[in-house]
Amino acid sequence: MENINPNIVKLEYAVRGPLVIRAAEIEKELEKGAQKPFKRVIKANIGDAHAMGQKPITFIRQVVACVSYPELIEKYDFPSDVKQRAREILKACGGGSVGSYSMSHGIELIRRHVAEYIERRDGHASDWRNVCLSAGASNAIKNVLQLLCNDINGQPSGVMIPIPQYPLYSASLAEYGLEQVGYYLNEETNWGLDISELERSLSEASKKCNVRGLVVINPGNPTGQVLTRENIESILKFAHKHSLLLFADEVYQDNIYAEGSKFYSFKKVVREMGEPYSSELELASFMSVSKGYMGECGLRGGWMELLNFDPEVQAQLFKCISAMLCPTTLGQTAVDCVAKPPQPGEPSYELWLKEKTAVLSSLNKRAKMIADVFNSMPGFTCNVVQGAMYAFPQIEMPAKAIEAAKAEGKVPDAFYAFKLLEETGICIVPGSGFGQKPGTFHFRTTILPQPELLQQMLDTFRDFHAKFTAEYA
Amino acid sequence: MENINPNIVKLEYAVRGPLVIRAAEIEKELEKGAQKPFKRVIKANIGDAHAMGQKPITFIRQVVACVSYPELIEKYDFPSDVKQRAREILKACGGGSVGSYSMSHGIELIRRHVAEYIERRDGHASDWRNVCLSAGASNAIKNVLQLLCNDINGQPSGVMIPIPQYPLYSASLAEYGLEQVGYYLNEETNWGLDISELERSLSEASKKCNVRGLVVINPGNPTGQVLTRENIESILKFAHKHSLLLFADEVYQDNIYAEGSKFYSFKKVVREMGEPYSSELELASFMSVSKGYMGECGLRGGWMELLNFDPEVQAQLFKCISAMLCPTTLGQTAVDCVAKPPQPGEPSYELWLKEKTAVLSSLNKRAKMIADVFNSMPGFTCNVVQGAMYAFPQIEMPAKAIEAAKAEGKVPDAFYAFKLLEETGICIVPGSGFGQKPGTFHFRTTILPQPELLQQMLDTFRDFHAKFTAEYA
Repeated sequence: MENINPNIVKLEYAVRGPLVIRAAEIEKELEKGAQKPFKRVIKANIGDAHAMGQKPITFIRQVVACVSYPELIEKYDFPSDVKQRAREILKACGGGSVGSYSMSHGIELIRRHVAEYIERRDGHASDWRNVCLSAGASNAIKNVLQLLCNDINGQPSGVMIPIPQYPLYSASLAEYGLEQVGYYLNEETNWGLDISELERSLSEASKKCNVRGLVVINPGNPTGQVLTRENIESILKFAHKHSLLLFADEVYQDNIYAEGSKFYSFKKVVREMGEPYSSELELASFMSVSKGYMGECGLRGGWMELLNFDPEVQAQLFKCISAMLCPTTLGQTAVDCVAKPPQPGEPSYELWLKEKTAVLSSLNKRAKMIADVFNSMPGFTCNVVQGAMYAFPQIEMPAKAIEAAKAEGKVPDAFYAFKLLEETGICIVPGSGFGQKPGTFHFRTTILPQPELLQQMLDTFRDFHAKFTAEYA
Repeated sequence: MENINPNIVKLEYAVRGPLVIRAAEIEKELEKGAQKPFKRVIKANIGDAHAMGQKPITFIRQVVACVSYPELIEKYDFPSDVKQRAREILKACGGGSVGSYSMSHGIELIRRHVAEYIERRDGHASDWRNVCLSAGASNAIKNVLQLLCNDINGQPSGVMIPIPQYPLYSASLAEYGLEQVGYYLNEETNWGLDISELERSLSEASKKCNVRGLVVINPGNPTGQVLTRENIESILKFAHKHSLLLFADEVYQDNIYAEGSKFYSFKKVVREMGEPYSSELELASFMSVSKGYMGECGLRGGWMELLNFDPEVQAQLFKCISAMLCPTTLGQTAVDCVAKPPQPGEPSYELWLKEKTAVLSSLNKRAKMIADVFNSMPGFTCNVVQGAMYAFPQIEMPAKAIEAAKAEGKVPDAFYAFKLLEETGICIVPGSGFGQKPGTFHFRTTILPQPELLQQMLDTFRDFHAKFTAEYA
């Protein structure tokens, strides 16, 4: 144990940490008939929509089934656009089979469809050669982060990440030995991103590392805010001024709920800011089929678009991923269906639209419901969930609870979350797994349980919290 | 460019290197109507069976289609064992959907099936908790290699790999900053693995690094040898003596062709050697659905089995992969079909057996054919292809060709391979991409083109080589 990679030992990924391991044990105990005050574990720890009862989008699954078993194209009664799409994808595969490796950056046809999607979304050109498909966004993010591993003038590279952040970032920085440079989001302004805080964070960090990258998650995870266009412009100016590679984690771009909130991609904004930004700022944007209205986490599909990368550096990045052969072709198929969904007049369009709208409007209602209930609970404050799939409320932690946690060797929010899990079966992630201002306590819950289950979860949560507060008053 | 990760710049992966990039360009030129002395590019550079015309195994694809679009289970006329299998897998998925994340080490049901497969294969117990599913073997290999990144007493860790080797190893060692410690396979004894050479290599390397791992590829890639049981025993003793973590790359375990050759897993042999080996030797064995009789490269499924890992280290490994969420559930589905194929008496059995046998017996014929033809060509010597999917012949390089290569700034085998590609459309990989004894020249070709195409490829190759030899005589 003492001889293994110390970076691996350091790495933490709270979304699947000890609490979640315990939740899986409890599920097994329940299966074996253990008596508990609850009948099921509610996994509100992870953005896993289908696991929480969301139904797949029919079009995606029909196309995946057809490319997997092409006999269906002729023999089963699928809509003609499904069959057509499956034929196109198969034609783009080596030997006409999804069992062939694709190019490491993905099937060219699908990269082209992604570029067209980006063009429609932004109203600006996208070059398919700058699009790289991946097995989910995480892989692509790690590949780009890895480029920055290089000590210059005796100092390691550093990457700025929001606090609170999605722990893929802290975990990957630890794994690669990159310095984590946190900047705080402002809870008082609905998790706003202040440029003065970016400047403070950068200037402090510059003493110990070469800050080379800036991660922005929009819509926010775990914080659910949606950045305004003005805010994005300021961030782009900041990144440009300090020659930072900007990581735009935009996997929740379809998940916008609050009135007045709108998604602007960093790519669109930088294009519209003109020179020198539009031709100088280095940007990598990430997207996934795991979130949005599709929630296809298990299929592992995603992409990144690179902007203004030095062509040699981009070639090095593509070389590096080539040793991992290729992202799954069936995940790429799902990407194709997301990048090029059925269009009005096509046979699958009505059903696709109906399913998509149903998912997003239900998420919208749940986003409101969860914040409202939390805000009605004494000791809770919860910002508006403008987008993404999570609420990140703050809890006042009674002094006695803090002591009790200490006695058990736990941080207070983890202590709270473990108690919640053992007593109610609700699995959330303590705020300490994402980072939070010292002395504050939060947790992240998804908004993904289906409405009835979510209502039940919130009722149980309220009772638990009342009991907890009374116990440690 | 000068500021990026120097390990990424160093990394080379010849199987998808400059030659293959040029091959893709030529394909595009042909599509656009360019006149060439050939009509198609033959990609003999990569073990990509379906791309070369091999048909998928029906059972695998039917199950994948059913789990992707479960309506098919009720509505389409699939064999009952296909439907049953799909139902079982869906039941093991969160929310009954392959769109859910699985556990990071894979779906428990499938891990259990893999352990049962290993038990049947070896005749020895396998604990499913030591089985970890992965998106192909490469991912799993990299995850285990990464554990060894740790400078101890001011020296980096080193890992022994065969020369010639599959370049995933050299690429990953470069990426992780691990020392590559090559040991030569003995071409004169059909790429035999001599313990004296292992000792020489280890003792030389010990001056500059802490050697901590030993990679053995059996059946060999690119070399095609199948290790004898005695040889495996000696290797295990060597690894045990020097406390090396043994990486057993056994992804070609189904691809055994030569009479008298038989596959023995390292796990089986170490179990049968008894103490102290069976309870002390640290072993990680790797398997994939990309090779064997299935050739499902694009689906990205694989597994590793760990033996005698310190439980804490194993927990760290599993923690580290958890940040990458999970391997694709459809790749895992393919793993399930390979680990638990149809059994005699079940409706899918006859077709499955027929398809499997046809693939393996055709590969068997092609393995012989390719070695025979190469050995009949002046200046070529080619060892028996006992297993795997490749031939790795040696070519005598005329002095004038070596000069001409030098003038073009190419190594001679790459010079030869580029000429072959431009003049015939045949894409092979130069031996320098795998490593070879200084002053010798080889290339790797797959045996995967279907028989007629392979015959045509070999005829063209023979003509090219005659011309090349005449030109540089």
